Amino acid sequence: MNGNMRMATEFFKVVAPDAALKSLLANGLPELGVAVVPTREAAGRVVGRDVRAPEPSPAFDRSTMDGYAVDASDTFGATESLPAYLSVVGEVPMGESAEHGVSASEAMLIHTGGMLPEGANAVVMLEHTQQLGDGTIEVVRPVAPGDSTIRRGDDVAEGNIFLQRGRRLRAPDIGGLAALGISGVPVAIAPVVGLIATGDEVIPPESMPEPGEIRDVNSSTIGVEVEQAGGVARSYGIVPDDRKALQTAVERALQQCDVVIITAGSSVSARDLTAAVIGSLGPPGILAHGLALKPGKPTIIALAGDTPVFGLPGNPVSALVVFDLLVAPTIRRLLGMHIEEERSRVQALLTRSISSAAGRLDFVPAQVFERAGDSWAEPIFGASNMVFTLVRADALIRVPADANGLPAGAKVDIRFLT
Amino acid sequence: MNGNMRMATEFFKVVAPDAALKSLLANGLPELGVAVVPTREAAGRVVGRDVRAPEPSPAFDRSTMDGYAVDASDTFGATESLPAYLSVVGEVPMGESAEHGVSASEAMLIHTGGMLPEGANAVVMLEHTQQLGDGTIEVVRPVAPGDSTIRRGDDVAEGNIFLQRGRRLRAPDIGGLAALGISGVPVAIAPVVGLIATGDEVIPPESMPEPGEIRDVNSSTIGVEVEQAGGVARSYGIVPDDRKALQTAVERALQQCDVVIITAGSSVSARDLTAAVIGSLGPPGILAHGLALKPGKPTIIALAGDTPVFGLPGNPVSALVVFDLLVAPTIRRLLGMHIEEERSRVQALLTRSISSAAGRLDFVPAQVFERAGDSWAEPIFGASNMVFTLVRADALIRVPADANGLPAGAKVDIRFLT
Repeated sequence: MNGNMRMATEFFKVVAPDAALKSLLANGLPELGVAVVPTREAAGRVVGRDVRAPEPSPAFDRSTMDGYAVDASDTFGATESLPAYLSVVGEVPMGESAEHGVSASEAMLIHTGGMLPEGANAVVMLEHTQQLGDGTIEVVRPVAPGDSTIRRGDDVAEGNIFLQRGRRLRAPDIGGLAALGISGVPVAIAPVVGLIATGDEVIPPESMPEPGEIRDVNSSTIGVEVEQAGGVARSYGIVPDDRKALQTAVERALQQCDVVIITAGSSVSARDLTAAVIGSLGPPGILAHGLALKPGKPTIIALAGDTPVFGLPGNPVSALVVFDLLVAPTIRRLLGMHIEEERSRVQALLTRSISSAAGRLDFVPAQVFERAGDSWAEPIFGASNMVFTLVRADALIRVPADANGLPAGAKVDIRFLT
Repeated sequence: MNGNMRMATEFFKVVAPDAALKSLLANGLPELGVAVVPTREAAGRVVGRDVRAPEPSPAFDRSTMDGYAVDASDTFGATESLPAYLSVVGEVPMGESAEHGVSASEAMLIHTGGMLPEGANAVVMLEHTQQLGDGTIEVVRPVAPGDSTIRRGDDVAEGNIFLQRGRRLRAPDIGGLAALGISGVPVAIAPVVGLIATGDEVIPPESMPEPGEIRDVNSSTIGVEVEQAGGVARSYGIVPDDRKALQTAVERALQQCDVVIITAGSSVSARDLTAAVIGSLGPPGILAHGLALKPGKPTIIALAGDTPVFGLPGNPVSALVVFDLLVAPTIRRLLGMHIEEERSRVQALLTRSISSAAGRLDFVPAQVFERAGDSWAEPIFGASNMVFTLVRADALIRVPADANGLPAGAKVDIRFLT
């Protein structure tokens, strides 16, 4: 075995992560379809089809204050010294329409959320009235038509799209669906992501290692990340560094999954084996082998037919970084979302300088804290880059490819670990 | 009914939200205990007891590079022009210990993750060697003891606490547990949060409203928020504005839940009724009635024995704001977490000025976008403050109580809606 030669063939030409993602998504990924799920279970799911309001909201003209429903023109010019006098002709019951309307110079007591009676077009707030004790009130300020009310359809007009395809459902969205009586919501079917761990040295987490063996970490961490991204993780266990066994496992996963992830063993030969199997799956085949990324260089990105196949590094930190950069956006695309995360960027100030090679995107684990109203990121140096480095970290600092290191005090993009 | 008098009695004295929370948590909340759950299902749960490493990690001295395991002293002084010559005496198999060790002037081929053989204390990277073809290598750079290796227990020493009580489990934490062979993890038992909706005008989401009726939104939105905060939501349905019915429902919820939330009807009399029932539940009783908060003023905070009871405003936007400020921290405390969210603050720049009254904390719905590397928050004005305002919003802008409005361009704290 010639080490130098092997290093040269393994990473013939490294590719920028965003270029690799672009080539993966260039041909379009399959549509996985839509399923209707009960609204009360839909938080976190992604809207599969635009949702229109089947009715206007609110469904009737409502008061937004406690006060008196009036015809606004009856209050024009009213002041403390020259109030308008109105007769109180009843009270609007909550949850019902008033028994009758209001006519000129009449007012009806109404509560927040109450339905405006016929003839009323505004509400005078209680604070701007005085009761005279004889069924009459003084109004000491004028109101304009529409004041302290919300009109039928003001919030959402009938037929309007209020939830767009590709949007992840949050608490208020579930509330909006409830408000409109929509008890089932069309969501994108979650992609099934097959996870295959490889490596002769890798054993299941529940086993006791012999000397030289280590427990499988990636099936756990990547499994959690898949679910967080909106996919369904399906584990295919640990496959030894054997061409036939790996080929069989990958082909089975390809038949059953929408995305296949192989976490390579950490040895060169294990990585070569993974590359050989991924390379044999048919066109379009391997799109990138080796990324301009640290950690995460030994990554393979491929398409077998229209199924994305990822060969992730065996190192758990590298695997998580690559997942975040490449696999999570792929899952989002399969869900019909934008590939960028919904969240806007989070930034922090660097506590000390970071060195990095230009031309390569770097991620550095960090602890994040608040000081004097600012967020600061403290890089974790001298770390082993094993999974416990991330257990101790709050976030990853992004060092852009065009940066030749970053100085202390620089504003940096960070990504919280979840 | 005298409107002015009622307004005066309802909010005798408004309280700052953080003061209300402080008085709620002052007496300590009950411990809900710990349950062991399978590690693979524990992501998002909160660690209930400090977790110690049952064994060191890594469990053996490992190579972190592809190269040759050597005794570092054999390479001292090696250069391109004056290399050290070492005999290659074998290869360390992955997942096993080497059949024998290395002696003076010997080297053994080793892969990333391989177990260091007896007698070796460093790894020379492949790039710094040349094979001579006769079973000998040239080493062209010296290594120090420990180079390109990680020692047994370097990452986590046996007996060390690596996950502390009160921490929410993230993907890397699940990986750390897997690495150590810990298949079950002690998590805080999730508090059960009872939800009671009230209001004569409120009907279930699946019903068709008559004039004046509206569908229950808060049970949906607050239910989602409870689960996101780490609680278990239990709905007690919609109770009419009737003292006896509400009293019965609240007392039943108190027996079965760790926290009780009543979302009041929107009318004054419905709010009065909620206050009367909460006031009757026994000591310590109502701690705050009315918050210096917009939206969210008509809020009641109480303790019935050691059970927190919240009377939230009926308006869904107000209810979500108060949940976030008061109920979510209470749930976190019951889970043994810090009451502040784990995440550090997220900030954005204001697109335009916001007015607000000093002495009151304000939250303003906003859309958030990126421009020129900064996050900007665009306040949504003229909004109805119904739930669809939040459907259209990405975040809430926090306007501090000591601010008399905020100018365009100001850096503001925002809270993404989830």
